[in-house]
Amino acid sequence: MNTFGTNFRFTSFGESHGLAVGGIIDGCPSRLALDTDAIRADLARRRGEGDETTTRREADEVEFLSGVMDGITLGTPIAFAIRNADTRPDDYEELRHLCRPGHADFTYQARYGIRDHRGGGRASGRETAARVVAGAIAKQLLAQRGIGCRAAVAELAPQTPDDTRGGSVRCVVQGLPAGVGDPVFGRLNAMLAAAMMSIPSSTAFEMGVGTQAADMTGSAFADQWLAGGRTVTNHCGGVQGGISNGMPVEFKVTFHAVPTLPHEVDCLADDGTLRRVNLGGRHDTCHILRLPVVVEAMAALTIVNLIDLKEQ
Amino acid sequence: MNTFGTNFRFTSFGESHGLAVGGIIDGCPSRLALDTDAIRADLARRRGEGDETTTRREADEVEFLSGVMDGITLGTPIAFAIRNADTRPDDYEELRHLCRPGHADFTYQARYGIRDHRGGGRASGRETAARVVAGAIAKQLLAQRGIGCRAAVAELAPQTPDDTRGGSVRCVVQGLPAGVGDPVFGRLNAMLAAAMMSIPSSTAFEMGVGTQAADMTGSAFADQWLAGGRTVTNHCGGVQGGISNGMPVEFKVTFHAVPTLPHEVDCLADDGTLRRVNLGGRHDTCHILRLPVVVEAMAALTIVNLIDLKEQ
Amino acid sequence: MNTFGTNFRFTSFGESHGLAVGGIIDGCPSRLALDTDAIRADLARRRGEGDETTTRREADEVEFLSGVMDGITLGTPIAFAIRNADTRPDDYEELRHLCRPGHADFTYQARYGIRDHRGGGRASGRETAARVVAGAIAKQLLAQRGIGCRAAVAELAPQTPDDTRGGSVRCVVQGLPAGVGDPVFGRLNAMLAAAMMSIPSSTAFEMGVGTQAADMTGSAFADQWLAGGRTVTNHCGGVQGGISNGMPVEFKVTFHAVPTLPHEVDCLADDGTLRRVNLGGRHDTCHILRLPVVVEAMAALTIVNLIDLKEQ
Amino acid sequence: MNTFGTNFRFTSFGESHGLAVGGIIDGCPSRLALDTDAIRADLARRRGEGDETTTRREADEVEFLSGVMDGITLGTPIAFAIRNADTRPDDYEELRHLCRPGHADFTYQARYGIRDHRGGGRASGRETAARVVAGAIAKQLLAQRGIGCRAAVAELAPQTPDDTRGGSVRCVVQGLPAGVGDPVFGRLNAMLAAAMMSIPSSTAFEMGVGTQAADMTGSAFADQWLAGGRTVTNHCGGVQGGISNGMPVEFKVTFHAVPTLPHEVDCLADDGTLRRVNLGGRHDTCHILRLPVVVEAMAALTIVNLIDLKEQ
Repeated sequence: MNTFGTNFRFTSFGESHGLAVGGIIDGCPSRLALDTDAIRADLARRRGEGDETTTRREADEVEFLSGVMDGITLGTPIAFAIRNADTRPDDYEELRHLCRPGHADFTYQARYGIRDHRGGGRASGRETAARVVAGAIAKQLLAQRGIGCRAAVAELAPQTPDDTRGGSVRCVVQGLPAGVGDPVFGRLNAMLAAAMMSIPSSTAFEMGVGTQAADMTGSAFADQWLAGGRTVTNHCGGVQGGISNGMPVEFKVTFHAVPTLPHEVDCLADDGTLRRVNLGGRHDTCHILRLPVVVEAMAALTIVNLIDLKEQ
Repeated sequence: MNTFGTNFRFTSFGESHGLAVGGIIDGCPSRLALDTDAIRADLARRRGEGDETTTRREADEVEFLSGVMDGITLGTPIAFAIRNADTRPDDYEELRHLCRPGHADFTYQARYGIRDHRGGGRASGRETAARVVAGAIAKQLLAQRGIGCRAAVAELAPQTPDDTRGGSVRCVVQGLPAGVGDPVFGRLNAMLAAAMMSIPSSTAFEMGVGTQAADMTGSAFADQWLAGGRTVTNHCGGVQGGISNGMPVEFKVTFHAVPTLPHEVDCLADDGTLRRVNLGGRHDTCHILRLPVVVEAMAALTIVNLIDLKEQ
Repeated sequence: MNTFGTNFRFTSFGESHGLAVGGIIDGCPSRLALDTDAIRADLARRRGEGDETTTRREADEVEFLSGVMDGITLGTPIAFAIRNADTRPDDYEELRHLCRPGHADFTYQARYGIRDHRGGGRASGRETAARVVAGAIAKQLLAQRGIGCRAAVAELAPQTPDDTRGGSVRCVVQGLPAGVGDPVFGRLNAMLAAAMMSIPSSTAFEMGVGTQAADMTGSAFADQWLAGGRTVTNHCGGVQGGISNGMPVEFKVTFHAVPTLPHEVDCLADDGTLRRVNLGGRHDTCHILRLPVVVEAMAALTIVNLIDLKEQ
Repeated sequence: MNTFGTNFRFTSFGESHGLAVGGIIDGCPSRLALDTDAIRADLARRRGEGDETTTRREADEVEFLSGVMDGITLGTPIAFAIRNADTRPDDYEELRHLCRPGHADFTYQARYGIRDHRGGGRASGRETAARVVAGAIAKQLLAQRGIGCRAAVAELAPQTPDDTRGGSVRCVVQGLPAGVGDPVFGRLNAMLAAAMMSIPSSTAFEMGVGTQAADMTGSAFADQWLAGGRTVTNHCGGVQGGISNGMPVEFKVTFHAVPTLPHEVDCLADDGTLRRVNLGGRHDTCHILRLPVVVEAMAALTIVNLIDLKEQ
């Protein structure tokens, strides 16, 4: 299932070292002047420009193939592609018959009986570039309605020589009116959880106080009313019964460290035996820094599907 | 959105103090001999029989209206209803124009411009009875394939006089083969997260080590291979790249305490002012004990939608 | 697939001689005062009251199990059931191992490996009673917006002693504004076609001039403009490029005669041999007269899913 | 809605005179060796090579952007694009503010408040090229399972100087086993009807004897059994109760003539007045000849979504 959403449907495609990654957005309102600068800026944030998190540098030029005329959306499907410029498939030849620990090599093989072994293929974080493009458009639609999504790194494991780091990202959605979310199974918090847990390397989703709620009594947890409908605290993270209550929507996503390691590890060969290899290839020493813009994109894609996007 | 799943589609209905709760299952394989004892047993677990968690006691008799002939499923929609026997709508008259703190009264009103004020209406935990029925059928289908879902209370806040308690539930799915889950947006962990966060009062979802991953380096987190394809640890909770790897699927769900309190609180009136009232009515002192069977039901409904359920 | 629609989702259940037929409507706007008289009147039209088309007479009392409080919709799922009062399962015992010609006995058996042999089971026209209830609610929503669906018998094969008759039904939707329909695959005419061909015994769907278009030149077919945006003719049936053009939406549905016959026919036994039997049981001599209200219901369900149904 | 299907999901994009048309197939089984010659051959049939039906000649080179490695499908989304080589946007400048009779100019404007006026934009038959690519892949999957779709022109209005012609296409699906189709709303005939009525210029869909059923009695219509489960006649077109019965699936689709005419017509201007113009531009004198391959494609896409496509 490579489609996200029902009204603003985003279908993603692409392997890390194939020709391109990209997608189709079906359901984007017509007559939106696409802000391509904002899209480019978000792609730059995802690439980690300004910090030194990845050794792969791609141009990430987005080509819009349809749905846009003179820079204005037509209401028809918006197809876009980002060519994979900096592919080095030969770097990965050794992995054709080996499954790395901590990666999706083994599970993709189990699921499909075949896999693109080059740089993680479809399971690579490269795929999130397409999400960032779609998310940037969704953020633009939300901004028109006074809604903003902003994410930042919340926790970052300390730097350790020769190793990668985990962390977490906190996101706040401001300006969302009360009444957004679709109980019972389309709850805003459930949709956000699915969106966040679909980001590679995510391990936990917490709404409001999250795991701390386990230790709180009912009287401590319950957000007390202020006259007018706001609340004193926001333990619930702005969502009650799956519907927004007008307070900021707040959640946190935990991500594990990238398991690609710069020293020898045991890989699983096709015959079930272990083979000790030194995994070269490129990887992120701290991909956490690149994730806030992906979290924002998925938050925006979630919310844009729950609000009214009438054409006119 | 009151439908869960795509192949084994469960649509839920019902208000807490309306005529009935229930649902339709569309896509259940034909020729399954329904284990009604198992359904009854799960409903008893949800009612908390054997412990003293709620003051409401309902017979919870399930009537199957269609899709079953002589106890065998026909492959057609299975409709079922559980009449709400022990309703006391008059208990809630005072709440017709008041929104309680910590509940979904205000958000349902914002969403729909109307709400069933009696006992939480659609937002009540009562609705989970229908999930338990559908989940019991799903568990039966999984058991035929050697797959078992088992949940238990993991954490429980200490007993405090006059107050309700939060906690968490851990769930393990045994016997799931490698290769189940549908990247990119239909990842097994994403689908589980949505399922769990759709349960009333949930605040966090953690896969494997969950939030602890933030503090782990890549070498500490990565589950190392054993020859044959199992792993030494199971930090990822049995899912990589959104697909099961054959290890047990493990996750934890945090739930906040029920915010109904046995003393006076400020409620929000229709005109935005506060009104101090003593909320009577019935409530759970510790609903955490009743939730494992609901977590199991949602886990089973998630997984039954991701595996092959061919008729013959 | 027993669900129709995406926004106003109707899920149908029930076998002809089981406990009940009914359904769940998910997505009906809140605060609609249900017109139960209109529902009853449409059910009476479906039963053919006033004409002598069927020997089965059922009370068709609709019970609303949820989603309605004090006669007003809550925005939550509306579940309803119509008990099957006049069932005579013993009449059908002979058919347990025989497949009638022209019916769905054989195909249901092939599809599910089991079937409810009593009166056609799920394949019976009885199932359309649930559609009529949902359709009556949809028609009420459309009427609020100035849109009306009206169907009538267009052709009826001449009366023949001892035999059943085919025919066709023409439907006109008045008041639909220009701009409704969702190209490319959600075209209004495509959605109408699917809706109509889902009615038991339908064999053809024609939009506007339908099959006559094969013999028309481009200049004869093209509906010429009048100033203001209406057209001189309406050959296209009010839909161009899958989107309504503001003219009446017109289409015709052909239905074959009920193949249940009052004399001996060869049935197919489980072992593939033929068995000559006299099919008793009840059947319609002219079910065409009962179909316009079903056509209206499906038209209304189609259109209500393509227009904006915002809550407030 | 530009997505067709649920398991083998095809999402289409592209305007006639934009950069490209194409699509994404999500759910194609892995390890299929793509037959690109068959794709090319079907595209040539759609272009009408060998006959003289259109003045536009495009290379129609398909570029696969993802989902395929070394010519083998990976199970991941297959994105493809066909660049629009022979675009002449300037030919259409006059139509920027005029709606032609018989075309979707007016309805697209009503629906989206904007439209691509160049050659019909999204409403052009050009869009069917993407369907033909997806359909060719679907046909390959069906052929592996012994199922073949074959369509041919059934009726063609006589040649008239200076005018375009309507006609009809008959399609037969051979080799489909009994038991395919998903009652009640996912009937094989309903899904075929929606698929066919989604093809530009279609006006009628007939299953089996189609409209002739109106004049047949029940005893004439009912297909009588032969021992073994085949039937003497196939009036129902191989589908009963929405499920295939093992006989050939037969249906006919009527198409109206292309309303673009080589002489002066009244067009509707933005202000509602009429403007008499001579519509130049390119058009098909007999597009009927190019449609059988499109009908085959949509038939294959329909059926591939109803059969079991398990990976291994």
